[in-house]
Amino acid sequence: MKYIVNVCLLLLAICFGSCGDRQQVGATSGKEEALVFPRGEKIANSNFVGTAWLTSLVAADSINQTAVGSVTFEPGARTNWHSHPGGQIILALEGEGYYQEKGSPKVVLRKGGVAKCPANVPHWHGASADQKFIQIAITGREKGETVWLQPVTDEEYNK
Amino acid sequence: MKYIVNVCLLLLAICFGSCGDRQQVGATSGKEEALVFPRGEKIANSNFVGTAWLTSLVAADSINQTAVGSVTFEPGARTNWHSHPGGQIILALEGEGYYQEKGSPKVVLRKGGVAKCPANVPHWHGASADQKFIQIAITGREKGETVWLQPVTDEEYNK
Repeated sequence: MKYIVNVCLLLLAICFGSCGDRQQVGATSGKEEALVFPRGEKIANSNFVGTAWLTSLVAADSINQTAVGSVTFEPGARTNWHSHPGGQIILALEGEGYYQEKGSPKVVLRKGGVAKCPANVPHWHGASADQKFIQIAITGREKGETVWLQPVTDEEYNK
Repeated sequence: MKYIVNVCLLLLAICFGSCGDRQQVGATSGKEEALVFPRGEKIANSNFVGTAWLTSLVAADSINQTAVGSVTFEPGARTNWHSHPGGQIILALEGEGYYQEKGSPKVVLRKGGVAKCPANVPHWHGASADQKFIQIAITGREKGETVWLQPVTDEEYNK
């Protein structure tokens, strides 16, 4: 009988040990796998409200006039209203964000979500109040640069 | 003593049960986190060798002539040689892949990697021999559709 108890205790020790390992490995690889692109540099201009980070992935040049960047918005952070002469495509990679075109309701974007903004339509995007938001922005520069407008008010953001 | 054995067996049962749950949850959430976009439909045309999957994220239209898609290549799968009148941008999301322009050495792409292919330059992309490869393709359609060429030979692929 004592032998059975010892075997049980040994199995318990092995089981708890491997349980801990598995959980740790899962958690670590989950975080690493989630971040596809580095967070980049903190955005330090007045076209954003709150804390946001930018990694430029592809610069527009004579080879291709499409610029691609990854933007990470901390909760509550957002762009000002702005428009693009060549339009913009947004791909949501992680978290929860908002996208709104002038005159339309705010749209919630989550991982795998896509928004397509027509040329010259004022819009804004950013994180939800409670979650960060990581997105790729694909912006055609062939017709000119981004036109920045007024900040998104708290009333507009919360509506 | 019998009581101790019963307690041990009960603890073992709970432990194995919770271990199984944790492993399953960890593995599932890990996979979900890694997969930003659904794998999509199996590509069933002769412009690809091996097994590849496509999710169209943004179709080119009058609002924006840039098309965006997520392609998943199984190990060894690749496109044929091809070119784009408007060029192409590739963003590597997961796994390990290859990108090669005609006349240049093959480039290895891993998560977070970027390739920018000039207009009308023959190139191919695909997974490495041992790993799958998930990539986003950003393709300008404003100057016309993809021009498909000959398959990538094993000699070219392995070089």
